[in-house]
Amino acid sequence: MHAICLHGGAGAITREIIDEALEAKFRASLGRILQAGHELLAGGGSALDAVALVVGLLEEDPLYNAGVGANVSAAGECELDASIMDGRTLAAGAVAGVRTVRSPIRLARAVMERSSHVLLTGAGAEEFAAAIGEERVENAHFQTPFRRAQWARVQELEQAAAPAVDAAGRPRVTSYTADDNVFFRELSFGTVGCVALDARGNLAAATSTGGMMNKRFGRVGDSPLIGAGTYASNASCAVSCTGWGEYFVRAAAAHDVAARMEYSGAHLGSAAAGAIARVGELGGEGGLIAVDRTGRVALPFNSAGMYRAWQTPTDGPHVALFGDE
Amino acid sequence: MHAICLHGGAGAITREIIDEALEAKFRASLGRILQAGHELLAGGGSALDAVALVVGLLEEDPLYNAGVGANVSAAGECELDASIMDGRTLAAGAVAGVRTVRSPIRLARAVMERSSHVLLTGAGAEEFAAAIGEERVENAHFQTPFRRAQWARVQELEQAAAPAVDAAGRPRVTSYTADDNVFFRELSFGTVGCVALDARGNLAAATSTGGMMNKRFGRVGDSPLIGAGTYASNASCAVSCTGWGEYFVRAAAAHDVAARMEYSGAHLGSAAAGAIARVGELGGEGGLIAVDRTGRVALPFNSAGMYRAWQTPTDGPHVALFGDE
Repeated sequence: MHAICLHGGAGAITREIIDEALEAKFRASLGRILQAGHELLAGGGSALDAVALVVGLLEEDPLYNAGVGANVSAAGECELDASIMDGRTLAAGAVAGVRTVRSPIRLARAVMERSSHVLLTGAGAEEFAAAIGEERVENAHFQTPFRRAQWARVQELEQAAAPAVDAAGRPRVTSYTADDNVFFRELSFGTVGCVALDARGNLAAATSTGGMMNKRFGRVGDSPLIGAGTYASNASCAVSCTGWGEYFVRAAAAHDVAARMEYSGAHLGSAAAGAIARVGELGGEGGLIAVDRTGRVALPFNSAGMYRAWQTPTDGPHVALFGDE
Repeated sequence: MHAICLHGGAGAITREIIDEALEAKFRASLGRILQAGHELLAGGGSALDAVALVVGLLEEDPLYNAGVGANVSAAGECELDASIMDGRTLAAGAVAGVRTVRSPIRLARAVMERSSHVLLTGAGAEEFAAAIGEERVENAHFQTPFRRAQWARVQELEQAAAPAVDAAGRPRVTSYTADDNVFFRELSFGTVGCVALDARGNLAAATSTGGMMNKRFGRVGDSPLIGAGTYASNASCAVSCTGWGEYFVRAAAAHDVAARMEYSGAHLGSAAAGAIARVGELGGEGGLIAVDRTGRVALPFNSAGMYRAWQTPTDGPHVALFGDE
C-alpha cells in the first residue's frame, strides 16, 4: 500500500477568478506532478523521496507561490521558506528567508540530513547552502512578470490606503488594511506541499512557499515551522498546511492533526477536519492535506478552493481545484 | 486562584558544576524575580503581564542565557530569540535572531499586539522594532566577560577538533563533535521562561533565549517557535520549554502538553511528563514548566537539573536547582 497527496495552495480559488485556460494549466500541472510522485512510490521509492521530489517539481513550476513564481517581499525580493519531516524518525529540516538557493526544499532536507539543526534562517541558511555545495541562483531566477505585476498593485494599494501613522499617532505596523486584506487573500494562495505513505509503511511531509505578497519585517509564516505547517509521525499521519500562516502557527495545526489521532483516537478525516475547524475559529482561512498509515487521505479546507491531487493504488488519480468538486 | 512558575534553563546543573557561591546567586535571583511576578498576580494583574514582566527581568540578569549574558554566536554576536502566547485568545508573537533590541520578549509581545504577524526574524524584526520605537542597544550590551570566555573555549575546541572536511570529503557542517557536545551541554543551559494563571482564569506563557553557544547558519531553536518552545491555551495549560531545542521542535513539545490534556484527558502532571518522555525518546535533554487552569504546576526535566521557581497563594515560594530537590 502506498499513497500520495499534494497541494498547490488554498484560497479564493473560484471559477470567477480562475478562467478556463488557467484552470486547464493547473489541472495539467497537478496531474503531471502527482504522477511523478506516484510512480516513484509505485517503484518502491520512499515517502521521503516522494515528498521531496513532488515539492521540488512544484517549486520549479511558476504557477505556484514557491520557488519560481514566488511572491515578492516589500524589499522586492523572493524570500523562500520550506520544511520537511520524516515520520519514521521524527527527523526534520527547515529553512526560512532564503533568497539564492534554487530549491528551498532540497536545502531543508540537507539541514535534516547533514546538520544537527532543524531550522536555519536568512543569510546563515545561505552560508550553510554554500558550505554543502547546494545550487545557488540569482534572486531574479524566482521572479515572474505575473508576480511582479501583483506586487506592484499591492504596493500601489498600500501607498494609497495607508497613512504613515495610525489614528492614535503610532507608526503603522500592520502590513495591510482591511481592504488590502481582501485583495491580498486572492494573491496569497500558492504555497505547495506533499504528504506520502510508502510501501514500507513510512510517512513523510514537505512544504515550500514564497510567503505573503509584499511581506515585511522578516515575517515568517507556518510553512517552515515544524508542527505548524508540516508534521509527520509514523504513529499517526503526515500533514502539510496552506493558508493564512499566522492562524496555522497559533493553532499548531499540523501537529494538532497528529495529536488528535494519537491522543483521542480520532480517524484521519475527523482529526484533519478538527484542526481546520480550530484554525477557522481563530479567524483563519486555508486547508491541509494529510495521509495516515493505512493510506487514507484527507484534504479539508475552509477557503473557497484548494489546488490538490491525490492517488493510491486503488483510488485516483484525482485532481481538483474548487470547493464543489 | 493564581499561580506562577518560571525557569532559568535546564542542563548539567549539579553540585559539582555549580559551587555554593553561584548556587546562592541563582537562588537569590530566582526568588527575587518569582516574587515580582507573584506580587503582580496577587495585585490582580494579568497572566500575560506577569510572564512578560518575569521574562523581562530574567533577560536583564546576566546569570541566564537570555538578553544580558546571552550565548555568543559563531559570528561573535548575541542573536536573541523570544516568544509569548496569550491562552485567552491563542494570540502569539515571536522574534528570532535579533541583535539590537534591548528586550526580545517585549518585542515579541509587540509583534503579537501591534502587527498582524506571529514571527518576525533577523534584520526585519529590527526594522519593526525601529518602526514602533522599541528600545535599541549595541550588541555589546548583551555580552558578558563570562560568556565571551566560554565562547573562546568553544571556538578553540572546534578549531582543534574539527577538520574542514569530513571523512567523505564533504565540508563539515555539523557544529560540534561528540566531545564538543558534552562540553557544550554544560554551556547551553540558561534559556528563561515563565507560565502563569491569573485570577480571571487566563493562562499565558513566555520564553527568551540566546540560543546555542557558537551557533552558526542562522540556527533557530525551539524558544521562538509557538508550539515547540512556548504554548498557552485556556482550554488546557501554559507551557515554556528549555533544553536541546532541536528535539523540542521535532516533538512539538509545548503544544504536545496541551494536546495530551485536551485530547486524552490527561492531568497536567502526566501530560507534561509524557511530553518530556517523548523528547527523551528522540535523544533530547531538557525540561519544561507548565500550569493549568486550576493552578496546578508541573516542572519535569530529564537533565541533571533545572533552575526553577514557583508559587501559588497556598504553596511556596519554592526555588530549586538540582534534580534531587
